[in-house]
Amino acid sequence: MAQVTTTRGEQIKKGTMTVDDLAKQVEGLKRQIENIKPGADEKVSIIVFSGDLDKILAAFIIATGAVAMGMEAVMFFTFWGTPVLRDPKKKAGGKDLMGKMFGFMLPKGRNAIKLSKMNMAGMGTTMMKSLMKKKNVASLDEMLEMAADLGVKIYICEMSCNLMGFKKEEFIEYPDLCYVGVATFLEQAKNSKVQLFI
Amino acid sequence: MAQVTTTRGEQIKKGTMTVDDLAKQVEGLKRQIENIKPGADEKVSIIVFSGDLDKILAAFIIATGAVAMGMEAVMFFTFWGTPVLRDPKKKAGGKDLMGKMFGFMLPKGRNAIKLSKMNMAGMGTTMMKSLMKKKNVASLDEMLEMAADLGVKIYICEMSCNLMGFKKEEFIEYPDLCYVGVATFLEQAKNSKVQLFI
Amino acid sequence: MAQVTTTRGEQIKKGTMTVDDLAKQVEGLKRQIENIKPGADEKVSIIVFSGDLDKILAAFIIATGAVAMGMEAVMFFTFWGTPVLRDPKKKAGGKDLMGKMFGFMLPKGRNAIKLSKMNMAGMGTTMMKSLMKKKNVASLDEMLEMAADLGVKIYICEMSCNLMGFKKEEFIEYPDLCYVGVATFLEQAKNSKVQLFI
Repeated sequence: MAQVTTTRGEQIKKGTMTVDDLAKQVEGLKRQIENIKPGADEKVSIIVFSGDLDKILAAFIIATGAVAMGMEAVMFFTFWGTPVLRDPKKKAGGKDLMGKMFGFMLPKGRNAIKLSKMNMAGMGTTMMKSLMKKKNVASLDEMLEMAADLGVKIYICEMSCNLMGFKKEEFIEYPDLCYVGVATFLEQAKNSKVQLFI
Repeated sequence: MAQVTTTRGEQIKKGTMTVDDLAKQVEGLKRQIENIKPGADEKVSIIVFSGDLDKILAAFIIATGAVAMGMEAVMFFTFWGTPVLRDPKKKAGGKDLMGKMFGFMLPKGRNAIKLSKMNMAGMGTTMMKSLMKKKNVASLDEMLEMAADLGVKIYICEMSCNLMGFKKEEFIEYPDLCYVGVATFLEQAKNSKVQLFI
Repeated sequence: MAQVTTTRGEQIKKGTMTVDDLAKQVEGLKRQIENIKPGADEKVSIIVFSGDLDKILAAFIIATGAVAMGMEAVMFFTFWGTPVLRDPKKKAGGKDLMGKMFGFMLPKGRNAIKLSKMNMAGMGTTMMKSLMKKKNVASLDEMLEMAADLGVKIYICEMSCNLMGFKKEEFIEYPDLCYVGVATFLEQAKNSKVQLFI
């Protein structure tokens, strides 16, 4: 074929490109497209490992901010993050000694957690909360409500509940609250544009 | 059409593929390409939440390392990370009582921060700094200069400044230092290949 | 050309599309495909900065969980994470005073690390370990073995070893244990779907 020595651009210009030439190119494109690694979803996945007030606030600010921007947000509460979701008004029976000890020692819900720094026997935490009110920064209560309204998904780590003896009946009411393992979280995280360990 | 019963490969081989067959395939490819979720930019986005010397060092090592590799890097200083960017030689007036208290209690700039562990009343931090010098690891001062030279972008969280009463005039000089909200950070993070919460 | 005023769909229907029309479209698709930013690999990259038992456990649970799901996993041990990989039975000579001090003060391997919270002079840590056994959660020893079997890659930060005076001969035996810099880690992280700083 004479076209072999001319470039594709020249072929198009000269009109010497044949249907079969094109068909081969289209086949090539198909293979290329199949091999493109796709990007992730408009989603933020956060592992909430810490139970400190400041980090929990940061996690909720990021999650609600993401949804306000049109992204999805998933929060996976694990380890020290788990007791933050306890409802202080609820009780769970049938715990063994270890479960009772953890239940007693870990904070009973989001209003019992403290700053990671400058807690100063609770004074720093109280100060921060009154400051947030004064500066019109949403409280954790308000943020949780906002998260529920906006559709932020909350997952609780099953293994942490198992370890610390937490029962499902002692957690807060939250739309579609799920108890999941690490695989479920990773499935979300790997399809998210943003993943954070807080 | 007789071609329906033959495969596309056979059609190409036999030269029985028509322009319209091809046109349909090209349309299909177009739709496929439009539906491909694109990947992210060669960028690292770091939330610098912690104000500990060791974590701040890690954040700068990662950010400058990324730029040295040809990537972009954005650091978003929030919460305890914010005071690290204060300039100890600068003062800001017009603060309320809470702002003055935070200003007094939080470290005045990068040379006042401490290790998260083994601080041992400052001894560990001093030890680490002298060690870094001895082992030719860049100091925080040098790293900040390097970051500025390399074009690492630094954002300061507006909400943290608002909460802790920090004024723009008390921060360090840094090229294109920006005061932004969480949305601006997320916009960067979701287009970055790497995002970290430090 | 008369076709200019008709849509491509109509051209296909009417059979008036020419080879050259198509060739131009194929060229356009090629450029589009070349400009698509590719997504990342099915990989999790974790910076293990912390040396706390709870965070180290979380890191291994995520890494082994990822590999169990068919992903790859890379753990980059740096700073306080580095001593966790020391083998308490091994000794390294030729250390300077600082290296000896760090070697003495930092935990000697994974069985000497403590919880980040509720350590309570070691009681909390002991409690957690016995609890993990009782609840059939793999111990750190078992997780490390699992990680090796599953092919989780472990990198040790060269700069941390340099700073803290750790020698290669005092680390554990692990398949393909590597000593790398931040660039090697970033190279992995930017091609990973999930990156975490723990």
